[in-house]
Amino acid sequence: MAKEYVVAILGATGAVGHRMVAQLAASSIPVKEVKLLASARSAGQQMEFRGQTLTVEETTPDSFNGVDLVLSSAGGSTSKKYLPEAVKRGAICVDNTSAYRMDPEVPLVVPEVNADQLKHHHGIVANPNCSTIQMVVALEPIRKAFGLKQIIVSTYQAASGAGQMALNEFYQQAKDHLAGKPMEANILPTKGDKKHYPLAFNLLPQIDVFEDDGYTHEEWKMIHETKKIMKNDMDDADLKVTATCVRVPVPIGHGESVYFQVEDESATVADLRKVLETAPGVVVEDDPAHQVYPQPLKAEGTGDTYVGRLRPDAENKGAFNMWVVADNLLKGAALNAVQNAEELIRQGLL
Amino acid sequence: MAKEYVVAILGATGAVGHRMVAQLAASSIPVKEVKLLASARSAGQQMEFRGQTLTVEETTPDSFNGVDLVLSSAGGSTSKKYLPEAVKRGAICVDNTSAYRMDPEVPLVVPEVNADQLKHHHGIVANPNCSTIQMVVALEPIRKAFGLKQIIVSTYQAASGAGQMALNEFYQQAKDHLAGKPMEANILPTKGDKKHYPLAFNLLPQIDVFEDDGYTHEEWKMIHETKKIMKNDMDDADLKVTATCVRVPVPIGHGESVYFQVEDESATVADLRKVLETAPGVVVEDDPAHQVYPQPLKAEGTGDTYVGRLRPDAENKGAFNMWVVADNLLKGAALNAVQNAEELIRQGLL
Repeated sequence: MAKEYVVAILGATGAVGHRMVAQLAASSIPVKEVKLLASARSAGQQMEFRGQTLTVEETTPDSFNGVDLVLSSAGGSTSKKYLPEAVKRGAICVDNTSAYRMDPEVPLVVPEVNADQLKHHHGIVANPNCSTIQMVVALEPIRKAFGLKQIIVSTYQAASGAGQMALNEFYQQAKDHLAGKPMEANILPTKGDKKHYPLAFNLLPQIDVFEDDGYTHEEWKMIHETKKIMKNDMDDADLKVTATCVRVPVPIGHGESVYFQVEDESATVADLRKVLETAPGVVVEDDPAHQVYPQPLKAEGTGDTYVGRLRPDAENKGAFNMWVVADNLLKGAALNAVQNAEELIRQGLL
Repeated sequence: MAKEYVVAILGATGAVGHRMVAQLAASSIPVKEVKLLASARSAGQQMEFRGQTLTVEETTPDSFNGVDLVLSSAGGSTSKKYLPEAVKRGAICVDNTSAYRMDPEVPLVVPEVNADQLKHHHGIVANPNCSTIQMVVALEPIRKAFGLKQIIVSTYQAASGAGQMALNEFYQQAKDHLAGKPMEANILPTKGDKKHYPLAFNLLPQIDVFEDDGYTHEEWKMIHETKKIMKNDMDDADLKVTATCVRVPVPIGHGESVYFQVEDESATVADLRKVLETAPGVVVEDDPAHQVYPQPLKAEGTGDTYVGRLRPDAENKGAFNMWVVADNLLKGAALNAVQNAEELIRQGLL
């Protein structure tokens, strides 16, 4: 009989946590027991899992006694506090926060891209940032086939990427504005900063806090996480990445305008499309004649990464533009975490 | 006594036309008489101009008898039909449609950038596309000081760029969606194409129709208009431009993520900022420590082009990212047309 796992979901009541419960339920993972963990404030809430009604418990170090697998999405400080406790008790943790992503001891994994890195784990595997995941899913098959020299990305990121409270705030702003009332902003662009601005009917070119060099931390993540994920599998370490991250008034589904330069300058759009059409996790939606291209409203609730608007930069050999969309809460978070867990099992690591 | 002008506004009842009337009223142009022209359907509507109530008339060739200046924003086919009639009758036309922009006999002018081209007019001066205008206002001072080799732009364009009816449709979609009703789409992404999709709470990576090479006509405009405007003043013709244009659920105010490479690789962000701070029509909003950056909600109703998020690409010397926002109906259309007319007068050409 296949092994059955005791799984703890840390941060079960959040936007991603909710989806982790649903994605785990829909997965092939044999689950003996699920523990839903959250802060004291959320304890007592009830959630469904494969037909059972479960009650959310307050997290303590001993919550992880007997746990095999932790899926974590309760914020970086919560991960820092509890994941070492879980590892000490023998669990393997897939962490969706930024706490351990750049730790050289922690593999940063998108299964379609670098599942081979999972074996280097020391109890913790990190899920990349949502905007990074969908970009590397789309670019990795291209990199493998043609090499990759440079990425210049501009993001169009949904409100839900800032969490359930930010999403609620965004909807309230939209309702208020349409009713002729002033919009209130107490969370967006980012809970951790001083000033807040309305997102509804607006664009906010700030995601996360600013670094000293003028880039936001979200942009920093896209640059450095992409390099960590892609360079592990590269002979040369020459991949250049720059990013501009913008929050847009969309609830769910990130868009990305990706400009990239491949090494093999003989590559054509037809070559790239052929590679993308058989790439894992990628759906090519690219038929200008019939106005087919990726859109957040169509991607919402699905697990794939949609790629379209693929076309060459006529003035730079080997350079291309494309448009990438995925559900930031699923492939960008909950689904990728569950896929990492499935892959750990497949590789006999869990 | 200064000359007083008879001015016709063609397409006076549209989103841009309305603003042309207001911007003309607010301008320094001495106006003897204003004729508001539109289609038969809109004739009879009343509008205010400098305290007078004027009635919109149906356009005929003879509407232009005695007219000195035409400001036109009624669609390309209307411009093609009537502007030659106006020119024949001695008027000078500032056209906000795409009808004449790439005509080698027609100067394509943003006054802050290439006012010197106005003297080459043969009766018609073209206003560039909204997304082009704000980009060249921000880039021209940089080009003048440091040279410019390449532009890679991703746009975040407001619904009003597709016209008043598209803006109305967008608001109705937002209301319907928040009320739990299905969204209807009959105009967006572009009236001239077959399929229509909701813009509210969504992103549409199509503005205008598709060209054979996979670029949209809006992207084509940004590429070729930028070259026409900037190359007129350049010794070498080596400026490379590529663009990805995306419609976003914002009513007014286009955002642009602009990546660019200057010729003088010793240029620093401080150098660029210094140049932008004294550039005509530019307002630098760039203070990450205090979360100051351009936003459409703040730009709406103003005539400036806002520049922020200026920062170097750490891995490419002479390359930078920036974020540019302007009111697409004002600087992107009505205001630029009136400024072109003011400049024609200043140069003794009208």
